[in-house]
Amino acid sequence: MNNDILKRIPKHIGIIPDGNRRWAVGHNMDKKDGYFYGIDPGFKLYETMLEYGVKEATFYGFTQDNTKRPSNQKAAFIEACVSAVNNLANRDANLLIVGNSKSDVFPKELLKYANKRVKFGKGLMNINFLVNYDWKWDLNNGINNIASSDISRIDLIIRWGGRRRLSGFLPVQSVYSDIYVIDEYWPDFKKDHFKEALRWYQTTDVTLGG
Amino acid sequence: MNNDILKRIPKHIGIIPDGNRRWAVGHNMDKKDGYFYGIDPGFKLYETMLEYGVKEATFYGFTQDNTKRPSNQKAAFIEACVSAVNNLANRDANLLIVGNSKSDVFPKELLKYANKRVKFGKGLMNINFLVNYDWKWDLNNGINNIASSDISRIDLIIRWGGRRRLSGFLPVQSVYSDIYVIDEYWPDFKKDHFKEALRWYQTTDVTLGG
Repeated sequence: MNNDILKRIPKHIGIIPDGNRRWAVGHNMDKKDGYFYGIDPGFKLYETMLEYGVKEATFYGFTQDNTKRPSNQKAAFIEACVSAVNNLANRDANLLIVGNSKSDVFPKELLKYANKRVKFGKGLMNINFLVNYDWKWDLNNGINNIASSDISRIDLIIRWGGRRRLSGFLPVQSVYSDIYVIDEYWPDFKKDHFKEALRWYQTTDVTLGG
Repeated sequence: MNNDILKRIPKHIGIIPDGNRRWAVGHNMDKKDGYFYGIDPGFKLYETMLEYGVKEATFYGFTQDNTKRPSNQKAAFIEACVSAVNNLANRDANLLIVGNSKSDVFPKELLKYANKRVKFGKGLMNINFLVNYDWKWDLNNGINNIASSDISRIDLIIRWGGRRRLSGFLPVQSVYSDIYVIDEYWPDFKKDHFKEALRWYQTTDVTLGG
């Protein structure tokens, strides 16, 4: 256990894995090629969260806003999301995919996991994955009938890639979340980033707006 | 003009003036007495924003969550909000107060300004003030009928007092906002804080989630 000095472990962490394209450009690759290098970091983080006893995590896959990007980028981030889910199917997690699955953009390979939780292996933690998500779609039917109602309140959001914003990430579950930004790009994920975020989280209080 | 090196001026800035109670404790006062010292900084910031050409600003007054605080604190922050509005009535701004005015907690003195924009003086900028605001109340009727529909999308949110979170501040208008946190408490507002936030804002891009 590495959490001896960390008394407060967030139950639910939101992950905004930004910076894949900037990372690719910095490595003399096409922008689209960055997404592939964002898959493995997700599993390293998953293993780290299991180790620290995090019960639930929500990963920002892609949004309807993102699908306005050039088509080769769109194909690449969709492929990366499908690969990530297929890989997760061999691990121990309860997967819930939330997003607009009625759109043509939603990957067919993931339809079987859409908007219902599926147990993989021992189901050691809940993993939510936003796929073709859109905040307007989520809130369309009012606060009591949000499309993401099976995703719980988020305690801590960690964003990679330096941007200090939510970019439409689950507005309802994020109203009281503490937000920690890692300047490095997501493909450069290190376990230390997570530990740094958790150390910072120890210094915050939880008031839920009170 | 001080904005010669600042090419991008956010049109709409959200202000979360946090840290009044911690400031009071640090000055050997009762927590409730901090709110009074948060009034003047608001006007200094208003004048700074006018100088820089900001067109709209939304101040987080108090929320329904806040009204669960001890009654002497509640009375003090309500009194500070009323004083701020009465003072603003002598300036040049278009005021819109947004909040649940049907509740007993909503200050009677402000009912005449509730949920409709009022022009003061030359009306040089739009000032929105959240009074007895609640994000659930705001979103209750769905995304197309939010209670805060007269408040536009926010480009930049500046929060004083070190907390890195939104605390229920206008979830819809904040989905794409850049968020800048000043560690100092709100009563210690300095014009330099604003300039620091604006300098940082120059380094961000605007993608609106794309």
